[in-house]
Amino acid sequence: MPRYGYITLLTDFGARDAYVGAVKGAILSVNPEADIMDVSHEIPPHDIREAAFTLLGYSRFYPFRTTHMVIVDPGVGTARKDLLVVTENYYYLAPDNGVLSFVLERERIEAIVSLEETHFFRSEEGRTSVCPTFHARDVFAPVAGWLSKGSKSPDDYGPRLDNCVRFEIPKPRALGDKLLKGQVLHVDRFGNAITNVTRAQFDEMTARLKTSPKIVASGKEITELAPAYGAAKSPLFFLFGGHDFLEIAAREQSAAAALGLAPGKDVGVVWG
Amino acid sequence: MPRYGYITLLTDFGARDAYVGAVKGAILSVNPEADIMDVSHEIPPHDIREAAFTLLGYSRFYPFRTTHMVIVDPGVGTARKDLLVVTENYYYLAPDNGVLSFVLERERIEAIVSLEETHFFRSEEGRTSVCPTFHARDVFAPVAGWLSKGSKSPDDYGPRLDNCVRFEIPKPRALGDKLLKGQVLHVDRFGNAITNVTRAQFDEMTARLKTSPKIVASGKEITELAPAYGAAKSPLFFLFGGHDFLEIAAREQSAAAALGLAPGKDVGVVWG
Amino acid sequence: MPRYGYITLLTDFGARDAYVGAVKGAILSVNPEADIMDVSHEIPPHDIREAAFTLLGYSRFYPFRTTHMVIVDPGVGTARKDLLVVTENYYYLAPDNGVLSFVLERERIEAIVSLEETHFFRSEEGRTSVCPTFHARDVFAPVAGWLSKGSKSPDDYGPRLDNCVRFEIPKPRALGDKLLKGQVLHVDRFGNAITNVTRAQFDEMTARLKTSPKIVASGKEITELAPAYGAAKSPLFFLFGGHDFLEIAAREQSAAAALGLAPGKDVGVVWG
Repeated sequence: MPRYGYITLLTDFGARDAYVGAVKGAILSVNPEADIMDVSHEIPPHDIREAAFTLLGYSRFYPFRTTHMVIVDPGVGTARKDLLVVTENYYYLAPDNGVLSFVLERERIEAIVSLEETHFFRSEEGRTSVCPTFHARDVFAPVAGWLSKGSKSPDDYGPRLDNCVRFEIPKPRALGDKLLKGQVLHVDRFGNAITNVTRAQFDEMTARLKTSPKIVASGKEITELAPAYGAAKSPLFFLFGGHDFLEIAAREQSAAAALGLAPGKDVGVVWG
Repeated sequence: MPRYGYITLLTDFGARDAYVGAVKGAILSVNPEADIMDVSHEIPPHDIREAAFTLLGYSRFYPFRTTHMVIVDPGVGTARKDLLVVTENYYYLAPDNGVLSFVLERERIEAIVSLEETHFFRSEEGRTSVCPTFHARDVFAPVAGWLSKGSKSPDDYGPRLDNCVRFEIPKPRALGDKLLKGQVLHVDRFGNAITNVTRAQFDEMTARLKTSPKIVASGKEITELAPAYGAAKSPLFFLFGGHDFLEIAAREQSAAAALGLAPGKDVGVVWG
Repeated sequence: MPRYGYITLLTDFGARDAYVGAVKGAILSVNPEADIMDVSHEIPPHDIREAAFTLLGYSRFYPFRTTHMVIVDPGVGTARKDLLVVTENYYYLAPDNGVLSFVLERERIEAIVSLEETHFFRSEEGRTSVCPTFHARDVFAPVAGWLSKGSKSPDDYGPRLDNCVRFEIPKPRALGDKLLKGQVLHVDRFGNAITNVTRAQFDEMTARLKTSPKIVASGKEITELAPAYGAAKSPLFFLFGGHDFLEIAAREQSAAAALGLAPGKDVGVVWG
């Protein structure tokens, strides 16, 4: 039987305001047994794409039926809906703005529910009390509390929707037989530039062309495929890291800084 | 029956030292069942007013008898007392330096206790062991552990005091019939400038004067009252956010940066 | 009977990536009852010495048999081993790179185990699946989950080693009868410069020489020994803080900035 009590939090609230604390209290007020896990509150303000990619990096490592709450929500209080998306594995609570785009590419959707049953929202003195600028505290947190009790059906929270907002995930393009044109999705704390080239694509091309590729980024050629950061011999190298995407890295420094890489920048993989 | 195990932490310890870790360990050593919630450790060093305002933003969303620990304590080790303040709702553990000023304006005080019973403090090899520079670890954390067990009476921890240090909360002043002069209390991560003008004051004036006000800040006039950040039409606007105070905001940028606003800066609200 | 469920996390992963979230999920997937405590994820990238000193500042305040996980691991995926070190008090999980040097000077080692039993590592579809760049998630986190269940013996995780990597802890040197030459180990968030001079050494010299010493740092003399930060009378002073080492501090500002102090800098203590 699944344990429902885990709730992860990913937000752009920052570490120095009261917002994270208020959300945690609102969850615990509904479910005193909830286990709340901070992932990050340092998503750059309003950066939906960074949040979507970050979510991809941790959600699948959690137990079945964990509730993943993702609040990067510049449109809070407007017509955009508050969602519960039930996949084969998890509950996702998020605004309908594309922040689930990456994970929904990997997981089968079982239900998309628009959170409209105000009975589950924050109430004060017996009346629903939702601040239009803070659905994280007044809508998502209490619903997370209820979900983490495991006793309600997703349909109790509101009507089903056929779709939710999903942005197009940038895919590497094949240019001719021997070149993949990918792009940087994310630069991590260490300055590793993580691209959208998957290990499967890379391995398939390498097997077919029977040769090792080089990477071309910012006009520089990078030729070493290292097994791990500390095993590299060249100042610049590439590898497959924890995200399972091709990464460009540098020996104990930031590859992104050295090469001027940032999300959206093109990267070429050239075989032979 | 209340559950006593929740302890929230707000400090100026920062995220990169051992101090937060030591405090958590000291709590768990007393109460293995304690549930510790990080709110923030990024209060600017020694900034009692920022901590006091931040506390106001989350404490009331927690379950009854949560222990809120607030450690911004430039006077640690001096004559200032270590307090347990019991209100109608919560236990507050804090140095006696004004950091509870905002919440004590809203909540009825049931007892102010000076933590003096050394029996509850950290001990090492059977003897009380309190570092004069780290009461958070050696006094507040073990007392939080004991409080969160729910088995002691507040009076067990020391003698009652009649008062505690409270700084004056700046209130908006009415200048004539149609002008409120408020001030900025806090700038949040998004650059929203949160003032001390309450929704009640604002609504009362607006109803009486049958007109919408404009805000004057740093010589600029701001005329749009938006329902939510993403619903605004003007580059600069105002609204009532999660704190329930009047905020000055800007469309997907920092209003504080755009207008040069910081805590203490005057803001006018002008009707008609 | 000890409670085994506590796991503390100290890493250089930073606060804005998915890495911390993935590690927490991987722990909970093995032990749903684990209590995970964030200490810090802001150790400077690859800074083994900072991590080693930070660990010393919190580990001993935790309950018996807490699992302390310390991941600052530039050599991940190379020949360096993944360790479980069992001391008289705790389980330490860390790469074999010296990051345990400070705590192992204080605690008796009961066993050093090389984590090699792949049965305990991350598996996917029934097969061991370890990313060479992310042992924190795929080796250390699942082993922490198992350890925190308390049902296995340390020897179940792999073969014993005779030694682990330990860097030399810099000790103060006596130059003549009346001078100790120490060095700065760490600068904390408040700018306090924490040296390697212990309270015991300081007290012994002071008792023997029947006089108070002065500190010489960056060519400046500091003469006040304060009982606590807020009790100091001089702009610059020294004291014994939460780490129980001699610290150089400044009144409500950064002593390290004022004096140009950083880890490794020499500090003299001069008696008479």
